[in-house]
Amino acid sequence: MAFSLGLDFGTSAARAVLLNLLTGEMMASGSSAYEGGDNGIFTDAKQPLLARQSPTAYMNALERATKMAVAQFVEKKLDVAKIIGIGVDSTGSTPIPVKQDLRPLEALPEFKDNLNAYAWLWKDHTAVNEALAITQKAAEIRPEYLRKCGGSYSSEWFWSKVWHCLNVDPVVFHAADSWLEQSDFIPATLAGITDVAQVKRNVCAAGHKAMYAKTWGGLPDKEFLGSLDSKLADLRDRLYDTAYTFEEIIGTLSVEWAERLGIPEGIPIAVGALDAHVGAIGAGVGQGKFVKIIGTSTCDIMAFPMEEAPEDFPGVAGIVEGSVLPQHIGIEAGQAAVGDLLDWWVQQVLGEEADHHVVLTKKAAALKAGESGLLALDWNNGNRNILGDQQLSGLILGQTLATKDYEIYRALIEATAFGALKIIKRVEEQGVAIKEVIATGGIGHKNELFMQLYADVLGRTVKLVENPETVAVGAAIMGAMAAKKSSEGFENIGMVQDRLAVSSNKNYVPDAEAHEVYQQLFALYSALHDAFGQNVEANLYAVMKKLIQLKLHPTKIKID
Amino acid sequence: MAFSLGLDFGTSAARAVLLNLLTGEMMASGSSAYEGGDNGIFTDAKQPLLARQSPTAYMNALERATKMAVAQFVEKKLDVAKIIGIGVDSTGSTPIPVKQDLRPLEALPEFKDNLNAYAWLWKDHTAVNEALAITQKAAEIRPEYLRKCGGSYSSEWFWSKVWHCLNVDPVVFHAADSWLEQSDFIPATLAGITDVAQVKRNVCAAGHKAMYAKTWGGLPDKEFLGSLDSKLADLRDRLYDTAYTFEEIIGTLSVEWAERLGIPEGIPIAVGALDAHVGAIGAGVGQGKFVKIIGTSTCDIMAFPMEEAPEDFPGVAGIVEGSVLPQHIGIEAGQAAVGDLLDWWVQQVLGEEADHHVVLTKKAAALKAGESGLLALDWNNGNRNILGDQQLSGLILGQTLATKDYEIYRALIEATAFGALKIIKRVEEQGVAIKEVIATGGIGHKNELFMQLYADVLGRTVKLVENPETVAVGAAIMGAMAAKKSSEGFENIGMVQDRLAVSSNKNYVPDAEAHEVYQQLFALYSALHDAFGQNVEANLYAVMKKLIQLKLHPTKIKID
Repeated sequence: MAFSLGLDFGTSAARAVLLNLLTGEMMASGSSAYEGGDNGIFTDAKQPLLARQSPTAYMNALERATKMAVAQFVEKKLDVAKIIGIGVDSTGSTPIPVKQDLRPLEALPEFKDNLNAYAWLWKDHTAVNEALAITQKAAEIRPEYLRKCGGSYSSEWFWSKVWHCLNVDPVVFHAADSWLEQSDFIPATLAGITDVAQVKRNVCAAGHKAMYAKTWGGLPDKEFLGSLDSKLADLRDRLYDTAYTFEEIIGTLSVEWAERLGIPEGIPIAVGALDAHVGAIGAGVGQGKFVKIIGTSTCDIMAFPMEEAPEDFPGVAGIVEGSVLPQHIGIEAGQAAVGDLLDWWVQQVLGEEADHHVVLTKKAAALKAGESGLLALDWNNGNRNILGDQQLSGLILGQTLATKDYEIYRALIEATAFGALKIIKRVEEQGVAIKEVIATGGIGHKNELFMQLYADVLGRTVKLVENPETVAVGAAIMGAMAAKKSSEGFENIGMVQDRLAVSSNKNYVPDAEAHEVYQQLFALYSALHDAFGQNVEANLYAVMKKLIQLKLHPTKIKID
Repeated sequence: MAFSLGLDFGTSAARAVLLNLLTGEMMASGSSAYEGGDNGIFTDAKQPLLARQSPTAYMNALERATKMAVAQFVEKKLDVAKIIGIGVDSTGSTPIPVKQDLRPLEALPEFKDNLNAYAWLWKDHTAVNEALAITQKAAEIRPEYLRKCGGSYSSEWFWSKVWHCLNVDPVVFHAADSWLEQSDFIPATLAGITDVAQVKRNVCAAGHKAMYAKTWGGLPDKEFLGSLDSKLADLRDRLYDTAYTFEEIIGTLSVEWAERLGIPEGIPIAVGALDAHVGAIGAGVGQGKFVKIIGTSTCDIMAFPMEEAPEDFPGVAGIVEGSVLPQHIGIEAGQAAVGDLLDWWVQQVLGEEADHHVVLTKKAAALKAGESGLLALDWNNGNRNILGDQQLSGLILGQTLATKDYEIYRALIEATAFGALKIIKRVEEQGVAIKEVIATGGIGHKNELFMQLYADVLGRTVKLVENPETVAVGAAIMGAMAAKKSSEGFENIGMVQDRLAVSSNKNYVPDAEAHEVYQQLFALYSALHDAFGQNVEANLYAVMKKLIQLKLHPTKIKID
């Protein structure tokens, strides 16, 4: 018997799970929220785009969550000495300014009240202008950088944030000897590393958030960074040349942290990774398996062998070697508003409580495909993929004087499903086969209609893998891989996943009749998608008329 | 001192006013609802498109309303002998099957329970198929008929309804010696006419609803009608060859009706007219004056001298010589959903009570032009003008995750204003000058924001003429014209209107800054209008992006 400890750092809490490496059984789990701020997030009324967190709070929550899991574990008469690997994932890009010895600036007395010295949470958007400037400069002199990140560099990402810090708070910027992603900071701290130069940074955050790629020799070159600000070029020397997959070990559990967590020192700790990717691992991502993590937004994760890699991959947000699985190309795509789009309708427009989703879903479920006569675009928060355009907005069309709130609710769900199909089609156009669609994240359990509509629109079975611990299980899988290095574990990640990944709760099978109608609606969605999202001429005269035909005869009329 | 009696038959009540012909002062008024049915409308649960009324109920309500007005009049020590003219308007097309002696079939014992023998109210839409067939046949063999009625013949109009009666209830059809419009039936009945062949039918209903035009010799020819059904060709012989303006007298008040109303017999009664047109007269319509009657839908009325008449007038619903003012070409255009569009949003979507308009209006009024970032098409009930296409539907675009209910409410008002501007521009393109925009109908008084947005969008002062009696005043103006024939009244309609028409309650003056923004939004509205409403290629790529620019800098950025 051997066990792996998976540690998952979400937006507001840390979770810990202990997995039986032979049976895959989850033996124990614990979770604990980050103290301070608003649900662990520090905000600033004057800067609505600001969102920061305390690195110290991460480590405290980690301690509480792990102790909780370990206590359960011990209660079951299991032996902590049999914990043979640790894996860690976190949100990102969440860069943290640190001293050479890895102390976060936030922990220094002089910076304790300065939010710029804290972790810059993934959803901090203060660096909008820096992101635009980076995109513009890259388009000019390094277009290859943009081709791997979906065409534009985001304000959520590493360089935008670090540069913004330099622009608004040079004192913090200069006090930082380096910056660590949350997903590097935590495993490195657990390993007791005291020289930031020695930290094996993870390729997942490096590649998807910091424009790291082997092709161009790691991080963006100094000429490019210097063209933004010479201080950024200088910083490059204090970052890293190589990034690693979680097949590598970042170190072993330090004496100090072994004591704090109540488990033995010396356990190998895998190099970190980002939560979405690790959630996909926990849900079984692999060749031909397309994992959708559907929550407020959707993140699509896929991995395929290097030799299958297309030259270029327009329309996905990120392409990074080793970011999902070792020896695979990882790709990430997504939709900027999914659950958020439905919440918008319920809370911002209808002014109802969050639980009103249940009422609308029930009424919407009674409709047939096409019956509402409506068609929507899911762009209320811009289009992440396949257009990569923030300057887009929502659209609802087909309304009559009898159109009801729940009909629009259903049209919004359908719109996100059409957006999902656009991404799948783009992936397939690149010659990558998708054999299985797996859905995970918050929505699947809450809304059966949502899942069924996805199956009906995609025309594929959608396997729901819904377990609050899926991401932490993915981290434990990473821990198992780390264990492999020092003891007899598993041959490769696929074998580990076969045994440990969370399996499907329920399969949603497409209804053939509904799918036929949705194919026609998807053609109309595509017409709108292209007309508003691309600089092309289009003839939209038929759109409203075909919707009326479909409304009157949802399953009878075949529209050419 | 001399007075005129105006009688107005609306959808659910009759109104009577007594006007001082020298001062224009309203001396007395009364109103009374039609008995029976649901607010005077008889419906059929099995046929949701059916809406019928009782001609007997019209006359009873008329008696009550007039007596009420006459009682007030007498109380003021005024002399009923000084009432020198009567004018009558009603809804339409509301055809009534009658016997040769003008008795409505509904009044006969054998038909008292048969709704097909009642008046077919303007909003009865049971004749949808007949309307389509008439449009199709006319397009084939009489395209000139369609050119005068906006490109398609409506299910609300005379021939559709009469033909539908023939198709569903031949017994009623064959029992009818003729059919009278409500606007002919009432004045003819007051005049005691006992031979339907002697009734001077009004050109307003004939021209706008029954395809009557001097150009082609009156009603549609027998060949055309026979191609629909030979019984319709036969019916033509029992209708009329010539239709008249309200400059003509239909007759004088009969002894029977003088007694029932409590006023002297022998008062001249003008030929009838339709309520929208008469409302426009009451609001001062005339050369260069564009009258908008804004309620659940909008009806635009204009009149201009014959010599100014363009050859063709694509994009307006009706062009009829003499239909608005004698010796003028009357044109009618409109928008199918205005107040209805706002009611849809409040009641069908938000699920709020009707009084919630006040809350939304207050919040919407705090926004600047462009600030919502939204743009809508006002087509939830199709587009009446300038496209004349029922197969269109609503559209809302520009939503973000922060878009609120009241922002969409404002965008819907703006959409109807843009639709109104489209019609005005089309009229001007035909070389007809519009010097003044007058608004009347139900909305103006209720919603100041609505009126101001119209001024801002149109870039013209909008004069609100809001008085519940405006239509009845228009009828009294017709009465004054009738009086002219027999006594010394007025030289021409313009002089009568100058003295008697209701004057503006309030002028809404456009805000220059808002108008500038709305000119840019109108260009975007036009892009959508043409893209979805016409079979043309369009490039809509800039629409969402420009809306975002306008939202961020509603009055700063000049968009090309």
